[in-house]
Amino acid sequence: MSDGSDKFHDECGIFGVFGHPDSAAHTALGLHALQHRGQEAAGIVSFDGRHFNSHRGLGLVGDQFSSKDTMERLQGHAAIGHNRYSTTGTTVLRNVQPLFAEFDFGGLAVAHNGNLTNGHSLRRQLVKDGAIFHSTTDTEVINHLVANSRGIPMPQRPTNRHGSEVSRIVDALAQVKGAYSLIALTSEFLLGARDPHGVRPLVLGNLDGAMILASETCALDIIGANFVRDIEPGEVVIIDDEGIQSLSPFAAVQSRFCIFEYVYFSRPDSIVDGVNVYDARRRIGIELAREHPVPGADMVTPVPDSGTPGAIGFAAEAGVPFDIGIIRNHYVGRTFIEPADHIRHLGVKLKHNANKATLAGKSVVLVDDSIVRGTTSVKIVEMVRKAGAAEVHMRIASPPTTHSCYYGVDTPDREGLLAATRDVEQMRQHIGVDSLAFLSMDGMYRAMGLTGRDNTQPQYCDACFSGDYAIPLTDREDGALPSQLSLLAEQ
Amino acid sequence: MSDGSDKFHDECGIFGVFGHPDSAAHTALGLHALQHRGQEAAGIVSFDGRHFNSHRGLGLVGDQFSSKDTMERLQGHAAIGHNRYSTTGTTVLRNVQPLFAEFDFGGLAVAHNGNLTNGHSLRRQLVKDGAIFHSTTDTEVINHLVANSRGIPMPQRPTNRHGSEVSRIVDALAQVKGAYSLIALTSEFLLGARDPHGVRPLVLGNLDGAMILASETCALDIIGANFVRDIEPGEVVIIDDEGIQSLSPFAAVQSRFCIFEYVYFSRPDSIVDGVNVYDARRRIGIELAREHPVPGADMVTPVPDSGTPGAIGFAAEAGVPFDIGIIRNHYVGRTFIEPADHIRHLGVKLKHNANKATLAGKSVVLVDDSIVRGTTSVKIVEMVRKAGAAEVHMRIASPPTTHSCYYGVDTPDREGLLAATRDVEQMRQHIGVDSLAFLSMDGMYRAMGLTGRDNTQPQYCDACFSGDYAIPLTDREDGALPSQLSLLAEQ
Amino acid sequence: MSDGSDKFHDECGIFGVFGHPDSAAHTALGLHALQHRGQEAAGIVSFDGRHFNSHRGLGLVGDQFSSKDTMERLQGHAAIGHNRYSTTGTTVLRNVQPLFAEFDFGGLAVAHNGNLTNGHSLRRQLVKDGAIFHSTTDTEVINHLVANSRGIPMPQRPTNRHGSEVSRIVDALAQVKGAYSLIALTSEFLLGARDPHGVRPLVLGNLDGAMILASETCALDIIGANFVRDIEPGEVVIIDDEGIQSLSPFAAVQSRFCIFEYVYFSRPDSIVDGVNVYDARRRIGIELAREHPVPGADMVTPVPDSGTPGAIGFAAEAGVPFDIGIIRNHYVGRTFIEPADHIRHLGVKLKHNANKATLAGKSVVLVDDSIVRGTTSVKIVEMVRKAGAAEVHMRIASPPTTHSCYYGVDTPDREGLLAATRDVEQMRQHIGVDSLAFLSMDGMYRAMGLTGRDNTQPQYCDACFSGDYAIPLTDREDGALPSQLSLLAEQ
Amino acid sequence: MSDGSDKFHDECGIFGVFGHPDSAAHTALGLHALQHRGQEAAGIVSFDGRHFNSHRGLGLVGDQFSSKDTMERLQGHAAIGHNRYSTTGTTVLRNVQPLFAEFDFGGLAVAHNGNLTNGHSLRRQLVKDGAIFHSTTDTEVINHLVANSRGIPMPQRPTNRHGSEVSRIVDALAQVKGAYSLIALTSEFLLGARDPHGVRPLVLGNLDGAMILASETCALDIIGANFVRDIEPGEVVIIDDEGIQSLSPFAAVQSRFCIFEYVYFSRPDSIVDGVNVYDARRRIGIELAREHPVPGADMVTPVPDSGTPGAIGFAAEAGVPFDIGIIRNHYVGRTFIEPADHIRHLGVKLKHNANKATLAGKSVVLVDDSIVRGTTSVKIVEMVRKAGAAEVHMRIASPPTTHSCYYGVDTPDREGLLAATRDVEQMRQHIGVDSLAFLSMDGMYRAMGLTGRDNTQPQYCDACFSGDYAIPLTDREDGALPSQLSLLAEQ
Repeated sequence: MSDGSDKFHDECGIFGVFGHPDSAAHTALGLHALQHRGQEAAGIVSFDGRHFNSHRGLGLVGDQFSSKDTMERLQGHAAIGHNRYSTTGTTVLRNVQPLFAEFDFGGLAVAHNGNLTNGHSLRRQLVKDGAIFHSTTDTEVINHLVANSRGIPMPQRPTNRHGSEVSRIVDALAQVKGAYSLIALTSEFLLGARDPHGVRPLVLGNLDGAMILASETCALDIIGANFVRDIEPGEVVIIDDEGIQSLSPFAAVQSRFCIFEYVYFSRPDSIVDGVNVYDARRRIGIELAREHPVPGADMVTPVPDSGTPGAIGFAAEAGVPFDIGIIRNHYVGRTFIEPADHIRHLGVKLKHNANKATLAGKSVVLVDDSIVRGTTSVKIVEMVRKAGAAEVHMRIASPPTTHSCYYGVDTPDREGLLAATRDVEQMRQHIGVDSLAFLSMDGMYRAMGLTGRDNTQPQYCDACFSGDYAIPLTDREDGALPSQLSLLAEQ
Repeated sequence: MSDGSDKFHDECGIFGVFGHPDSAAHTALGLHALQHRGQEAAGIVSFDGRHFNSHRGLGLVGDQFSSKDTMERLQGHAAIGHNRYSTTGTTVLRNVQPLFAEFDFGGLAVAHNGNLTNGHSLRRQLVKDGAIFHSTTDTEVINHLVANSRGIPMPQRPTNRHGSEVSRIVDALAQVKGAYSLIALTSEFLLGARDPHGVRPLVLGNLDGAMILASETCALDIIGANFVRDIEPGEVVIIDDEGIQSLSPFAAVQSRFCIFEYVYFSRPDSIVDGVNVYDARRRIGIELAREHPVPGADMVTPVPDSGTPGAIGFAAEAGVPFDIGIIRNHYVGRTFIEPADHIRHLGVKLKHNANKATLAGKSVVLVDDSIVRGTTSVKIVEMVRKAGAAEVHMRIASPPTTHSCYYGVDTPDREGLLAATRDVEQMRQHIGVDSLAFLSMDGMYRAMGLTGRDNTQPQYCDACFSGDYAIPLTDREDGALPSQLSLLAEQ
Repeated sequence: MSDGSDKFHDECGIFGVFGHPDSAAHTALGLHALQHRGQEAAGIVSFDGRHFNSHRGLGLVGDQFSSKDTMERLQGHAAIGHNRYSTTGTTVLRNVQPLFAEFDFGGLAVAHNGNLTNGHSLRRQLVKDGAIFHSTTDTEVINHLVANSRGIPMPQRPTNRHGSEVSRIVDALAQVKGAYSLIALTSEFLLGARDPHGVRPLVLGNLDGAMILASETCALDIIGANFVRDIEPGEVVIIDDEGIQSLSPFAAVQSRFCIFEYVYFSRPDSIVDGVNVYDARRRIGIELAREHPVPGADMVTPVPDSGTPGAIGFAAEAGVPFDIGIIRNHYVGRTFIEPADHIRHLGVKLKHNANKATLAGKSVVLVDDSIVRGTTSVKIVEMVRKAGAAEVHMRIASPPTTHSCYYGVDTPDREGLLAATRDVEQMRQHIGVDSLAFLSMDGMYRAMGLTGRDNTQPQYCDACFSGDYAIPLTDREDGALPSQLSLLAEQ
Repeated sequence: MSDGSDKFHDECGIFGVFGHPDSAAHTALGLHALQHRGQEAAGIVSFDGRHFNSHRGLGLVGDQFSSKDTMERLQGHAAIGHNRYSTTGTTVLRNVQPLFAEFDFGGLAVAHNGNLTNGHSLRRQLVKDGAIFHSTTDTEVINHLVANSRGIPMPQRPTNRHGSEVSRIVDALAQVKGAYSLIALTSEFLLGARDPHGVRPLVLGNLDGAMILASETCALDIIGANFVRDIEPGEVVIIDDEGIQSLSPFAAVQSRFCIFEYVYFSRPDSIVDGVNVYDARRRIGIELAREHPVPGADMVTPVPDSGTPGAIGFAAEAGVPFDIGIIRNHYVGRTFIEPADHIRHLGVKLKHNANKATLAGKSVVLVDDSIVRGTTSVKIVEMVRKAGAAEVHMRIASPPTTHSCYYGVDTPDREGLLAATRDVEQMRQHIGVDSLAFLSMDGMYRAMGLTGRDNTQPQYCDACFSGDYAIPLTDREDGALPSQLSLLAEQ
């Protein structure tokens, strides 16, 4: 994973505004609040009544959208933006979203969060039919499907004025499989859509009459917008001068919101799919303490920062003091040149340091949100032991991640997942702790306010824990995954 | 015109190599020799046996291709490159050639010098049929035509191995009108083509067995390659591991090489269309002296640097001393902030200074290659007069430019051309000289070794002097020229 | 204050290595661990046996020292480095430390943390005597004093080999007043010194025989070095090939370590002046809860991140749940262009968001480390109230900051300090909380393990709370503070 | 020599304005006109009534001073600027002039063109006395001499108001030996000075009442200023609100203006030391044709661009046609990565190409201004021969350069000079021409309007031809030239 951290990574954050004179500045702020969903690149496209204005670049939102020149170019009453976390290879500019295309009906800018499971198959066919691709993104697959569509009949009639354009976009979405939350901007309207299972989040907000679409509510808070509601799974909304219209063009299925959004992806202060993330994580910590208490523990300490809410919940439930035993250095630069005599675990040390004074001689409960490869855990535990901890008990605020995700999350292949090939005792030995325990699947669902997992019709996508892939993995099954997506190497 | 000079500007230089282990480095050098054909951007695409490697950027070749990192990425035995001079607006990266596209048969990189006269009409139809454009270049029109082609039957069979690809490219070229010299690179072959009228130059060279295509022979000289021959008007050559094959897929027409290449565009040391440019210019100066002598002149001085060969010819023929009365400053930076009390003619002064010691009290013959808007001429003449010249006689080494060019040259609209709305006497008054004279059209052809212009079947394209547009101006006639090519404003 | 935060800011972090083949890479890592002490610029000077190699630049350590080219230039077995936080104006490169100067005895690189209280007076005299300054730093004052010194007799003889150089440096230090921890590098030795009161920290470490000097122990941890001891107040150490020699050339005085290092400046995992910072802060929280409990509170929440340890201590002592009510966004870019309709408290919102789900309806104890101007506090409290908190009680983990610091800390003038002109009740009303309380001075000293402040001979520098300035403010008293330090405006 | 060309290089151009509201913009333009005197770096310091404003940077004037931000910072009614060509090593920013220093009397910015022959000796003594140097420039030696001066009595009283400052600057200049044209700016006045021998040029101009100092008159022309007169050898002028005052504080000696300024350094359109450079070069060509005619020659062609005026003169005198046989590519980028199979003479080919059509079968007279190492000459001649020239006769428009220059010109050591170790016949063989001839020393002086060289009291500095060093080479004789000037390696 590209930042060297041993975590699953969400692939994107998206944000859109319609009906505000200063739409690009608000979009930049919204993307800043969603920066945790993708730090490699960011882009904004606005429409000013005549032209679409675009700025896309590598790096943080605050670096890309800090110049007055850039912001003055991004005129318009409507804008959409995107934060990118890339899964493969170098992030090149041509892959940075929103992607813009011109059709006979005018311009279309599209940004999405998620992953198509039949994107490669579709791309292959489109190229055979004469399409020229300029990126390796799923988003461009959707653009070409729109370009080639003649529209589909829709049970529900979209706003008259945009009937043709909307029916072509819906036609395109009807052909794709996978997880997506998508926003699109034309010269006339802003469109938002979630896949029928509603795997990725998308919320609707209101700022003084302007309508907002965003991955999480924290992006509404930063601009002072009100949270209106979630976009529903399978819903398509069209926002224009006359207001918002909601369509449900797809056959209804059981929704399967990604439960890992609560474990790690979303920001604690966000409400996604109706649940506050901090609350969920704290309750997860409580469930974890009930399932796997640590008798005789002296302190509970999080692996910062993602383990903190779970550790607070665990400590409160267990009646053990909560303390900060590992300090995180939030300053990061590009990279460091390691000394010739390599420093043991330098990568971890650049971000973390164990506080000897707090840990020495203690029986420590270390709470982390999840274990992916386990590489960081090994180093953190060694660091805590070196700091003098007498006992180290690790408690993980989610079930073992035994399967890869194909729905818009950057995960290793199965063989890279520690829990895919080892049982808990083997993992305990590998990580080097005195005890190790994971939250159970039912405990996870209990923390979400349910009585447990309904195995016949699970309410969340938990494929990374269960291998239960609700959406078909078409490319994978068809062997359509190319060894290399593009023949072009460009920087 | 974007560099502030009052000249016609050629729009591009192209260069390609097949069969050399160090193809990109040679391409960079070739492009450097062709830098006078376009200074705004440059790009190279190489093929290394597995991938196409691309680097494109704004600025001079020597700035873009000076880094070891860049050159090491551009591996491969074949490469093509392009220098860009843009006609409209800001040069954005997505318009920098070569353009690369992936088809079902693999990758294709294309670079061209010229201008399609039905490009907008074709683009409009292609978009209607579902094509998504990513640039505003003619080159991409050709790419989409290739993408949508199923090939055409060709009287002459192309090399078996590439029959399908070549017939699709030829099919695309058969649909375009205009002036072009084009090079294209696939994983299998390098293709070169000139439009049936052969308006733009393209030469074939040989470097130790590797085949070279280049706009001018000066690009062969820099790498030590031998000049083999011109690519013929309407010829398509395919260069692969087995050698070179020549096709003539288009109906033959009278060739119309751009005569302005001899007036200004090409480098003096190049041989294009069989004639050395310096020689042609010198002979033009001789013809000019014969047609329009200046009795009593003390010195002949060129407007540097393009007027120099003509001035040398004029001086020799007239028996008047040749001297340098205007000094050119070859150092340029980005721009200068002018002082608040604007300096009279600062733009000209940044590049030129009159040498008072040489000019004072003299009757001066000032030789320039052409007059476009006349703006610079006015300032140069004022500068020469201020330096103390007693008389200033201007002699122009070409006929009056009364018409715009639509064949790949950046020219003002007709109303912007000084000669379009004024006769010679009016121009003389406007420029402020004691006498003004232009070479006649027949004089021009005589300098090219002919007896004069064959008005029934002219041997050169001289539309800018005559308004005789040999290739139909389809877009112009159809009103297909959009006020703006793209809805997207990007930097 | 330049980063817009309402905090005191320490002015620098320093780090030095002697006797390690890879000294610059270790120095870069040490500076990264000390990044919280200064983020505006960083520099490293190494000595490779023949030359001093220097790299200094604006921005984070990880940006400046991430290139292989840079690090390969910084050869040598000894190096010193510096992180800069500037007090005045733009940080220009000529002010970035370490400063290097060449004397008749060879080169000297110097970096320091602190502030001279007679720097301006000395500078004025030096200029009068012919010195040419190239920066506006105190460090250069020291360099010029060394340049002009002929050495002083020292009761204790420094190592023979460096007697002359050391006696000149000590002579220079004997002339300056103020707070400083200083490191200097010559071709022969590394020197470390703390001012007689020992206001700023400096620790000694050992890495496989190489000696390390660093502002805090966290910089030893990152490279795996062992903590040896604090450099003593008034101590000068000389480290060379033969080991370390300690001198005490100055008259002994009561040490006055800066107590604010525990409140805010130092990193929680560091041990400075013999005390772990996290422990101190946690104990401060406990003392605060004892002095100023909040009956009926539902939760204790920190103003992140500096209020966290105090809040944990407070919550534990008070028996009230600790929870995260304010989320911090750690991603920062350069700046943001605010929308035209200014967002209320945008500056705070870029970094913080209140978590409504956690705060709504609660009686909240908000723990912050200190109040400087109070500007951020007002906004944070408004944000917490808007999130639905029923009551907001603010508890400050230090006494009111009523006085400016002149010992190397960036503080506003007295009139800018909220506590300088208002009593606690006035501050409560200004900030808009239901109750407000500060830790008492004696409580502060109790948290440090003492029975209270010994007013006749205080053990810490607490001038910002007490106005008790142990070191004379010479420039201030002499009116030697220039309105502008330099006549040169350079970028 | 750093640009790879085989020429002597002048080390700098200087420019100053006093009394103009837009002084920095005029200075930038003046420096642009002087760009041929130094292309490595440029700097401007202005004084705005309160502050000195400085901008210095590497690269061309037009790149450094093209930004509005930069120019708006450089406020003020007086400014000085400098173009740098460095003799040794990398140009680092701290060496870029003007250098600024603050004294007890205020600020002083200094820029100079030339070289001190006792600079190292002075520097060594100044360091011993406590001076701290920040650059390796001669200019800083002068600054330190001013800092340490208490003034000297002057026979002629300078303007009362600036008596002290001027007498300190004159005192400093009285201590230095060497060749210099210097300009200095204080808050009160602009000072200009030429060394007693007047080796380097400095002219005085007038722009609407504002006074200008510049290396050459071409810098007056670009801003429309009038040429007033040369500053005299040994003259010091002080320009302030009340006008200009001239001092002659040094003992008079025979002036020795650098004759090579006419051979190569100055721009053809400049008048320096009373003589137009183009005229001088043309007359040199005439003398050369008289001394060394080439019977049977078909054409005279210059090595561009510096050989052009001489070639024109030669051709006119000899009655042989002047033609352009070698074309120069004026576009340059940073560098090029040479192909693995190195191209023969690539360096030369990047800039020059022989025009086969012009040269083939001809007996060619090749005129160059001088031969330094001869490396380029060898390659040019080979290129001309390969282009088919039947005979190549080289004529050099100056005597053989047998000695190095120590007066502000970048020259190789003697052993590097082709003419230092070979006679003309040996050089002819080395270069590979059919005949080779140099202008005689007397011919050179005749071209300057004299009857020949007055060997008892030569009117020009011709040390590079004669070894007659009028100014003592103190450092060289004292062995004071350090192997390395600074212990610091910085980038």
